[in-house]
Amino acid sequence: MSKKKIVILGGGTGTYVLLTGLKKYLPQVDLSVVVTMMDSGGSNRVIRDEFGLLPTSDIRQCMVALADGDEDQTLRKLFTYRYESGVGISGMTFGNLFMAALTDIYHGNQKKAIEETCELLGVAGKIIPVTFDNTNLVAMYENGRQVLGEHFIDEPREELLGKKIVEVSVFPKASANTDALKAIKEANLIVLGPGDLYTSVISNLVIDGVGKAVAKSTAKKVYIMNLMTRVGQTDNYKASDHVTEIQRYLRGNYLDYCLINSDIKFPKEALGWYKKVQTYPVEDDLNGTTKTKIIRASLFDKTIFQKAKSDLLVRSLIRHDPARLAEAVIKLF
Amino acid sequence: MSKKKIVILGGGTGTYVLLTGLKKYLPQVDLSVVVTMMDSGGSNRVIRDEFGLLPTSDIRQCMVALADGDEDQTLRKLFTYRYESGVGISGMTFGNLFMAALTDIYHGNQKKAIEETCELLGVAGKIIPVTFDNTNLVAMYENGRQVLGEHFIDEPREELLGKKIVEVSVFPKASANTDALKAIKEANLIVLGPGDLYTSVISNLVIDGVGKAVAKSTAKKVYIMNLMTRVGQTDNYKASDHVTEIQRYLRGNYLDYCLINSDIKFPKEALGWYKKVQTYPVEDDLNGTTKTKIIRASLFDKTIFQKAKSDLLVRSLIRHDPARLAEAVIKLF
Repeated sequence: MSKKKIVILGGGTGTYVLLTGLKKYLPQVDLSVVVTMMDSGGSNRVIRDEFGLLPTSDIRQCMVALADGDEDQTLRKLFTYRYESGVGISGMTFGNLFMAALTDIYHGNQKKAIEETCELLGVAGKIIPVTFDNTNLVAMYENGRQVLGEHFIDEPREELLGKKIVEVSVFPKASANTDALKAIKEANLIVLGPGDLYTSVISNLVIDGVGKAVAKSTAKKVYIMNLMTRVGQTDNYKASDHVTEIQRYLRGNYLDYCLINSDIKFPKEALGWYKKVQTYPVEDDLNGTTKTKIIRASLFDKTIFQKAKSDLLVRSLIRHDPARLAEAVIKLF
Repeated sequence: MSKKKIVILGGGTGTYVLLTGLKKYLPQVDLSVVVTMMDSGGSNRVIRDEFGLLPTSDIRQCMVALADGDEDQTLRKLFTYRYESGVGISGMTFGNLFMAALTDIYHGNQKKAIEETCELLGVAGKIIPVTFDNTNLVAMYENGRQVLGEHFIDEPREELLGKKIVEVSVFPKASANTDALKAIKEANLIVLGPGDLYTSVISNLVIDGVGKAVAKSTAKKVYIMNLMTRVGQTDNYKASDHVTEIQRYLRGNYLDYCLINSDIKFPKEALGWYKKVQTYPVEDDLNGTTKTKIIRASLFDKTIFQKAKSDLLVRSLIRHDPARLAEAVIKLF
């Protein structure tokens, strides 16, 4: 019997958490991650503007999640390292500089550079950039304003706070990486999220052909509901709003499953911290339909407050538990 | 029978060439390289001034020479890579940025960072920084002028061109790495050079205790004569001047051997190119003594003109042949 094939569409911290959990199932399942390539902030801006390369931060996070943990601890540590010294270097991530150098060595072939890096890190599973075209995310808001660049959607200007995003697209038009389309076509299970709805999940679906490929795929499709809203993207969104939006970008096709956390006893201190940045738990208003089954499980990581040390962690204190999230996903087979 | 122990004192391209040749003898011999740590130009200036770390370019070249050639070709390529893009990044070498990140990860422990890097690259042999103190090379010229910093000795100001260096020292005072002293003490053969006389070879001997340790060691001592003079350092030096200088920094102790190239049919075009930068073949005026045996052999690499492509090569077209140089060294046992 051939291995079951899971394809995750994402990028960012949510995907990192899911991959961390799924890693232990890798001998049994075939795992591919289709990764958004539109990051435009910080280290990625330098990579894009000064090196003329595609942004690699989302790719890098996936690599670290799936890297061989035993042998290459040093390389893993390096890949999450951000420089704090050096004029022009401070703020850059080592991983981005690593891939920039490797791409130059391979005469601009970023695909080859990513493959070589995965090999060096002993990455299990396939990491597939959704596109190799240099493109940007575009959000249109309910007031008609268009914003170009993932970074400006992630951290919107004050005038756009609270304004709903009505349409996400890319500019210029970008072709899907054929490896991504192939993985989606052959998948048994397609996982969307968790992650920022527009900038990490839908950002994949809007690449030419990707949304259609997911819609047409015979794979079961699951959306993993975010635990918290995201300021500037999903303010006031209830769970059903997330599902509606995903299905809209799937051209009206239905999700087979929506996986949602049922344990909402979030620590008070954490909620207080999130409240300061206008971020709240996503309200579960879901009713199952004959098309979409709602699966509720305790998915929230309670241990995170004690160990919130690394850069990755402090950015979201309320997050999914990698092991329980992965278990819930694997159970869908 | 325990392995014979070779200790090389050097840094720079000459050491790189020698190590490349010696690599194949590594199963039979125990190899250590004591490396100068006073580089202050380019990428190293940033490492020193902006990161507050010791310069690692000489270390890096040794690593590349001794790295596992089969598995880690990618890492080897990266370590010789110099960025050409990025404000503040252009001109930096990947290897230096790699070790700067690793040193920060190991809380400033540069020794640990070097060891970890050697392990990642599968480096055979031991690479030993001559000191872990932050220090600078100082040259005093015959006109009494003192110059601080390896970089300014390497590329002297016009007023100092043609002026003889009468004394090299370091400032501030630096203690020898005890691993270096131990290796020197236990060596069977100590190899000095080839390399820039003052900035790559004697720069090791002037670190407190190192010159004395070499002088006191029961190991056979060999100096490998440079093929060419070096502008600003050894203008008009004949072979005997090199030997005299080395022995002066060995506190009057004699070298057991001086290994010198006997094939002086250098290509005309190469000589023409060197002449433009006031660089000439070192004249062999050596007479053996009962103390110092002169060994002449064909050591010049004739194939280099055809393949002068990489950054390393274009900097010296007339250089030693790695295989023949290593063979001549091994024969000294």
